[in-house]
Amino acid sequence: MVTEVEMKNALQQYVDGFNEKDSYKIVQLFADNATIEDPVGGGRIVEGIDDISVLYKGAVKVVSSMTLDTPIRGSHSNAAAMAFTIKMEHEGKPMTIQAIDVMKFNDKGKIVEMKAYHGPSNVETN
Amino acid sequence: MVTEVEMKNALQQYVDGFNEKDSYKIVQLFADNATIEDPVGGGRIVEGIDDISVLYKGAVKVVSSMTLDTPIRGSHSNAAAMAFTIKMEHEGKPMTIQAIDVMKFNDKGKIVEMKAYHGPSNVETN
Repeated sequence: MVTEVEMKNALQQYVDGFNEKDSYKIVQLFADNATIEDPVGGGRIVEGIDDISVLYKGAVKVVSSMTLDTPIRGSHSNAAAMAFTIKMEHEGKPMTIQAIDVMKFNDKGKIVEMKAYHGPSNVETN
Repeated sequence: MVTEVEMKNALQQYVDGFNEKDSYKIVQLFADNATIEDPVGGGRIVEGIDDISVLYKGAVKVVSSMTLDTPIRGSHSNAAAMAFTIKMEHEGKPMTIQAIDVMKFNDKGKIVEMKAYHGPSNVETN
């Protein structure tokens, strides 16, 4: 089974990947058949490493910083979670999003499911 | 459908209930058939309002404070999440737990599922 340390390291690499604008660093954290729901309830599930790769290639271009609000949380099984703030550009204007991501891992330590919790009230346009 | 404002209000009441040592305030947020997994992977699911009532009656007695680490997150559907720090007494000694709770709601605005993400690395004994 994946360890808590491995999961927390993966989430930290996810954050670092955004700040380094290195989408490969992020994408290699995911399993081939992983799914991403961002935001939860947004009506779109990104599935499979090819679409995930496209997603993050675009995302690192528009995100200027990703900062943890509080330490990463593990669990007693294959899941971990983190609360963070993203500063990005949206349609030419600065935007701040506060989210909580929950990740599930497979036994090889790869992310198989990501759900991002943020709603309209967690978005600020400056 | 439950609104983001209703969900965020419910999570704030959950926090307030702990700080006011008012377990009823917490329990009335849950649906009769709700489930609680705290911590995720801990091997125990608390199910149904009777067991949930017992759980929180005990919990408010040992928790001295519950503080949000960052604003509550909503979503675009029936889920919300929050990152917080609990100070409590465990076996006569002070303990600090940092967790992220994810709650799902029914259409009536009651919590039907709670999952608490925290692992051994998120617990500090002082």
